[in-house]
Amino acid sequence: MHVMVIGAAGMIGRKLVERLAAEPGSLGREIASLTLADVVEPPLPPAFSSLATTLAIDLSTEGSAERLISSRPDVIIHLAAIVSGEAEADFDKGYLVNLDGTRALFEAIRREGERERYLPRVLFASSIAVFGQPFPEKIGDEFFTTPLTSYGTQKAICELLLADYTRRGFFDGIGIRLPTICIRPGKPNKAASGFFSNILREPLVGQEAILPVDEKVRHWFASPRSAVGFFIHAARMDTGVIGPRRNLTMPGLSALVGEEIEALARIAGQKAVSLIRREPDPVIQTIVSGWATDFDARRARELGFTAESNFDEIIRIHIEDELGGRV
Amino acid sequence: MHVMVIGAAGMIGRKLVERLAAEPGSLGREIASLTLADVVEPPLPPAFSSLATTLAIDLSTEGSAERLISSRPDVIIHLAAIVSGEAEADFDKGYLVNLDGTRALFEAIRREGERERYLPRVLFASSIAVFGQPFPEKIGDEFFTTPLTSYGTQKAICELLLADYTRRGFFDGIGIRLPTICIRPGKPNKAASGFFSNILREPLVGQEAILPVDEKVRHWFASPRSAVGFFIHAARMDTGVIGPRRNLTMPGLSALVGEEIEALARIAGQKAVSLIRREPDPVIQTIVSGWATDFDARRARELGFTAESNFDEIIRIHIEDELGGRV
Repeated sequence: MHVMVIGAAGMIGRKLVERLAAEPGSLGREIASLTLADVVEPPLPPAFSSLATTLAIDLSTEGSAERLISSRPDVIIHLAAIVSGEAEADFDKGYLVNLDGTRALFEAIRREGERERYLPRVLFASSIAVFGQPFPEKIGDEFFTTPLTSYGTQKAICELLLADYTRRGFFDGIGIRLPTICIRPGKPNKAASGFFSNILREPLVGQEAILPVDEKVRHWFASPRSAVGFFIHAARMDTGVIGPRRNLTMPGLSALVGEEIEALARIAGQKAVSLIRREPDPVIQTIVSGWATDFDARRARELGFTAESNFDEIIRIHIEDELGGRV
Repeated sequence: MHVMVIGAAGMIGRKLVERLAAEPGSLGREIASLTLADVVEPPLPPAFSSLATTLAIDLSTEGSAERLISSRPDVIIHLAAIVSGEAEADFDKGYLVNLDGTRALFEAIRREGERERYLPRVLFASSIAVFGQPFPEKIGDEFFTTPLTSYGTQKAICELLLADYTRRGFFDGIGIRLPTICIRPGKPNKAASGFFSNILREPLVGQEAILPVDEKVRHWFASPRSAVGFFIHAARMDTGVIGPRRNLTMPGLSALVGEEIEALARIAGQKAVSLIRREPDPVIQTIVSGWATDFDARRARELGFTAESNFDEIIRIHIEDELGGRV
């Protein structure tokens, strides 16, 4: 089987490739070749050094999608995008990369299939940003997509394309609406959602973190391990049972910031909690107040997708995967 | 005020222009110029001979949208599309005309506004084809758009673009999801939905019509007069009260084929009804069984959009507008 990961240098891409290296049978069939693409050349994992190709390629430039698809991968995992803040700041770039790049990929697959029969599994990283306020208490699987950002609009449009291309038989697609990933590894960043991870990650290694919102803020989370698991499951599942509604809100954990902090106290003690400094930030508070807080992700759960059920698990996963198992 | 109608040679476009000619004050401000565009040159209504321009132009060809928008219309009514059957039969053409043509129009408006402040009202003809089965008993205003046709996908994508361009302040848009128009004037055509009109229109003039489905088939209707009324209302309404959810399911009438026939009997007698010949057609039955049957179009009604409440009204409107008031 030939697996292609587009956006392989990103956080989920790298973790996904690590997982494939650690568990070579996880996709159900042997990986005979692996193509890792991103705008910067993605790292080549040692376990795959003999069968992997790494490519620096920008999907939104003319001919790139055709070049990628000419190798006819069996599974295409499309994680490449510019993030919400950038898509809002740069209207042209957001539409070019997030919409036109994805559409070029879908079109390249269709054209390849016109040449010779070809029906790859296509997994598309979508987002809960496809939804916009006001929300019901829990967002169900049939709630409409009325995004309030250009990023969410681009993701919602790609979801519609994915469903139509799948229905027409051009590929076998699944759209994966990711929760906010927590604990996001790495350095603190300036994303408005950064603090959800920062207030756990930094105190776990004895560093201070800033909490810009109230503890009663509720949000929707999954661990990086769950995010990888969604794509692995989607790559190997029987898509015959999904039907034409191919875009799925992934399961996650609806939790308060206060619950994050309680879990931190249970696992790392009050000393860790005392490293969280409260610095209310009205700008971040306003942004966050527009985000979804809870979902009833019944369809995805019924289709076998799983995520964490409490923040203790999310923290333990971080400790296992990022801190060598020790706090 | 400069009003532009794109798709002005189509049924709704022509009726809209006739209505503007008959009621020059209907948009609330005097029409100083009128641009009528379509792929074939639209008819020039005598009442507007001095202030109207007619243009044969294909929105999906390079530069056409810029050419249209360079005249900076205040109200742009975008009715141009290829229909459902054609969009399904010709994948490339459907996306080119219905998606890329509309996006080119929206982009041309944005670019014009970058040059010099410009915020036109943009009315986009969408469709209940943005919805796909299975449906709830009544489709509410927050039901998701999971189209099962490429046409519905193209309309749903344009709705997302319209909402985002409006939110970003590039124009002031409203998406108008039209019910099935009945009684559609003109000749019987081969559209799968044609019989809903045919079984009334032909018997009203003493001709035979074919009914390919059961009388218990339910569907969602509005008269051509209502369709024109939706655009007139949307052109002049205060958009400040809509909020960012700019795509509205228009009000309509949920009715059984049997109710159409009962209304025909009341208005034109059993002799007219006896001209309906039952010829069950499994192909048409299957297509029609996938269509929405009923909506709770609360938001549009609250915003002042109105439609018929029974089939007697729909037939009477046809008699007034198409048959000179007499059966």
